Amino acid sequence: MNEVIDFVHSNRDRFVQELSEYLSIPSVSALPQHVEDVRRCAEWTAAELERVGLEHVSLTETAGNPVVRGDWLHAGADVPTILFYGHYDVQPVDPLDEWVTPPFTATVREGEIYARGAADDKGQVFMHLKAIEAYLAKTKRLPVNIKVIIEGEEEVGSTNLDGFVRSHADELAADVVVISDSPMFDRGVPSLCYGLRGLAYLQVDLRGTTTDLHSGSFGGAVANPAFVLAQLLGQMKDRGGRVKIPGFYDAVKPLGEDEKAAFAQLPFNERRYRNEIGAPKLFGERGYTTLERLWGRPTFEVNGLLSGFTGAGAKTVIPAVAMAKVSMRLVPDQEPDVVAEQFEKYAQKMAPKAVELTVTKMHTGKPWMTDLDNPFVQAAGRALEKGFGRAPVFHREGGSIPVVATFQETLGLPSVLFGVGLPDENAHAPNEKLDLGNFHNGIVASTALYQEIGSVNV
Amino acid sequence: MNEVIDFVHSNRDRFVQELSEYLSIPSVSALPQHVEDVRRCAEWTAAELERVGLEHVSLTETAGNPVVRGDWLHAGADVPTILFYGHYDVQPVDPLDEWVTPPFTATVREGEIYARGAADDKGQVFMHLKAIEAYLAKTKRLPVNIKVIIEGEEEVGSTNLDGFVRSHADELAADVVVISDSPMFDRGVPSLCYGLRGLAYLQVDLRGTTTDLHSGSFGGAVANPAFVLAQLLGQMKDRGGRVKIPGFYDAVKPLGEDEKAAFAQLPFNERRYRNEIGAPKLFGERGYTTLERLWGRPTFEVNGLLSGFTGAGAKTVIPAVAMAKVSMRLVPDQEPDVVAEQFEKYAQKMAPKAVELTVTKMHTGKPWMTDLDNPFVQAAGRALEKGFGRAPVFHREGGSIPVVATFQETLGLPSVLFGVGLPDENAHAPNEKLDLGNFHNGIVASTALYQEIGSVNV
Repeated sequence: MNEVIDFVHSNRDRFVQELSEYLSIPSVSALPQHVEDVRRCAEWTAAELERVGLEHVSLTETAGNPVVRGDWLHAGADVPTILFYGHYDVQPVDPLDEWVTPPFTATVREGEIYARGAADDKGQVFMHLKAIEAYLAKTKRLPVNIKVIIEGEEEVGSTNLDGFVRSHADELAADVVVISDSPMFDRGVPSLCYGLRGLAYLQVDLRGTTTDLHSGSFGGAVANPAFVLAQLLGQMKDRGGRVKIPGFYDAVKPLGEDEKAAFAQLPFNERRYRNEIGAPKLFGERGYTTLERLWGRPTFEVNGLLSGFTGAGAKTVIPAVAMAKVSMRLVPDQEPDVVAEQFEKYAQKMAPKAVELTVTKMHTGKPWMTDLDNPFVQAAGRALEKGFGRAPVFHREGGSIPVVATFQETLGLPSVLFGVGLPDENAHAPNEKLDLGNFHNGIVASTALYQEIGSVNV
Repeated sequence: MNEVIDFVHSNRDRFVQELSEYLSIPSVSALPQHVEDVRRCAEWTAAELERVGLEHVSLTETAGNPVVRGDWLHAGADVPTILFYGHYDVQPVDPLDEWVTPPFTATVREGEIYARGAADDKGQVFMHLKAIEAYLAKTKRLPVNIKVIIEGEEEVGSTNLDGFVRSHADELAADVVVISDSPMFDRGVPSLCYGLRGLAYLQVDLRGTTTDLHSGSFGGAVANPAFVLAQLLGQMKDRGGRVKIPGFYDAVKPLGEDEKAAFAQLPFNERRYRNEIGAPKLFGERGYTTLERLWGRPTFEVNGLLSGFTGAGAKTVIPAVAMAKVSMRLVPDQEPDVVAEQFEKYAQKMAPKAVELTVTKMHTGKPWMTDLDNPFVQAAGRALEKGFGRAPVFHREGGSIPVVATFQETLGLPSVLFGVGLPDENAHAPNEKLDLGNFHNGIVASTALYQEIGSVNV
């Protein structure tokens, strides 16, 4: 084991260089103009799987972007098998002008590497590939069996992953899923995440008239879709931050007193949190703490708005159309499809007949929680302690990794969320970054994770 | 007089060709990238004033775009003087992809000329210049004294015109202002407009956090500026279309029963109106007819919305900022600055402390009404009958021409609104157009207007 760790230490700089190359590929799955880049990134990922010594490396085609696969299955039949999941696609980069350095030119500043995908998820995928490389380079073997799947559609809702998992269920048989695609609770606080929120993401389109109209000549006689959209969205939550969509909270499991108490024990500094994001004041659903709001309560958010004239200056139009992107984060036991229907029904009821309303479901994911006493979760806890020199805290996450529910439902597998990002990593914003210390410790922790999981009796 | 009219008839095609050249200059005053085009358009306008035979042609510089001037003052001291006002700047053209033919390539289809500025206001300015040309070419004189001022900032609120008028008040002394910058009541219905709404146009900016945030990791803990903007705007009107800004209606003069009755007599076909704009249903303030809403009641409109992710697909962000352009059309005796303050005060009161709200006043204009028995208004009515073969109707307009109030206040002059646009001319929308029949009849009517005004005793 020492020689493996030594290998990780002595190759630290090379790993960062290689990661920089990986981060230079603009594999933005949401934008059609990047479809070739996404494919190139899949091929680069596959070549890297080969380089680190995985076997049976291949691209499995889907209706969308391919899934990159590889495995190493020589640890023995009595040793557990990890199904490692990650994604090679990244978020769009706009607003581009807010990036200090270009999003696809990885740049190291003050111990952090800045690039789109640094934390979400190329950097964390790479951490595992380098741990695998260290074992295979120094010992020619791994202490665990591992199957690797790295998809290219996570940032657009993993559209084709469900089908892939279902149709390859036999080949993907394993004992535990390992995913590194989430932040730690805080800098210097290694963490295991045991709960994720789900998601229902929708687009709302309103049309009032055939073309934009002069707001003087027509103002007062027609419904204004930009105003109607504002009025409609504004009525989705009350001023106390509670969602007003009928039925929205019906399936929500209330937070237990034990869990509230555990949240309250975590080293969470609300003032620092507020300062880091630059908010004048925090705001959320009345009656809950910030961590409870983030982890244990569902949300309604407006993710984008577009209508009419948005340039410099003034243009006196009544817009013909107005568009909003909206999303709801969900907690157990909310069902995304049910919530999406509740939203649409409410929106249609609220919209006046003077506009045409269309609601389009963009993507959905179910909420997820795991048992803290699962032996793989416990094994992961010990591995993190080895990598970071400190026992991890157990926490939930506000974000969504819909595939976690897929693995649970389709393969019957528990997941270990072994994330080393940081809460301020700007995963979906300009200046995304990954702490290189965490990247390095994460590689060490990953080597320990394989050993710890390899020791679990199955 | 016959030779003048004959000249107009025999030069019909040339006038359209020349107008097409005028329309090819993209004099968009709202956009900084067109500043050189605006200047070029001013110079083209001045050269045209020279060509038609006006004297003392010059550009008067302002802090913004220059005012083009010229005059002809040899009709005699006992003959009235017209101050003709128009503007050579045009609206922006977006959304560009909705134009059937390019906005700055004038194209004739089915008797209408399509281009940005065709109706608002280059085509209507040109109508007067061609009437002047006809007189001076055939008779070497005009039946009236005329001072022409054509500005370049009407579409950005005539920022510098007030100052120009004030500082040149002596030189601009006249008996009546003539403006052709409004539509006729309907196709085939020559019209005199005796009332205009005012305007207060504002930009609203909200900031929540320093950068966009991941809507999973942060959703629920911070105020979302896109949602707050929607909620704030949505509360500006009730569901019956009444503006909720405190004090908004305080200065509104109620519509009299006589005027309501006159409006009801006008040949207004509500179904056709609705079909032309393609609205599923008309909508407006409860308790008023469509014409009353358009002409006699103030409005609140959202002219533009922009926040967060607006591209194809889905991006799970909480936007850092959100922006809206909003405007209110005003009726006598509302004061734009008072209304702008009422809006800002209400918005600040409604916005939660968790966001920073900024309101920027973009431009304002006062509402205006004139007396129907003014002799110049009556003269204009006779001129329209000569040009269009039918007595005009008297109506109000929903739009704003803020300079009309300026001329009233600064120079003490009544205005005659002698417009030949059509209600479906798309003045501030894609596919702006001018009916060439109206353009031609408008030139004839303008020659009659100068004669009729020249006969008024002053």
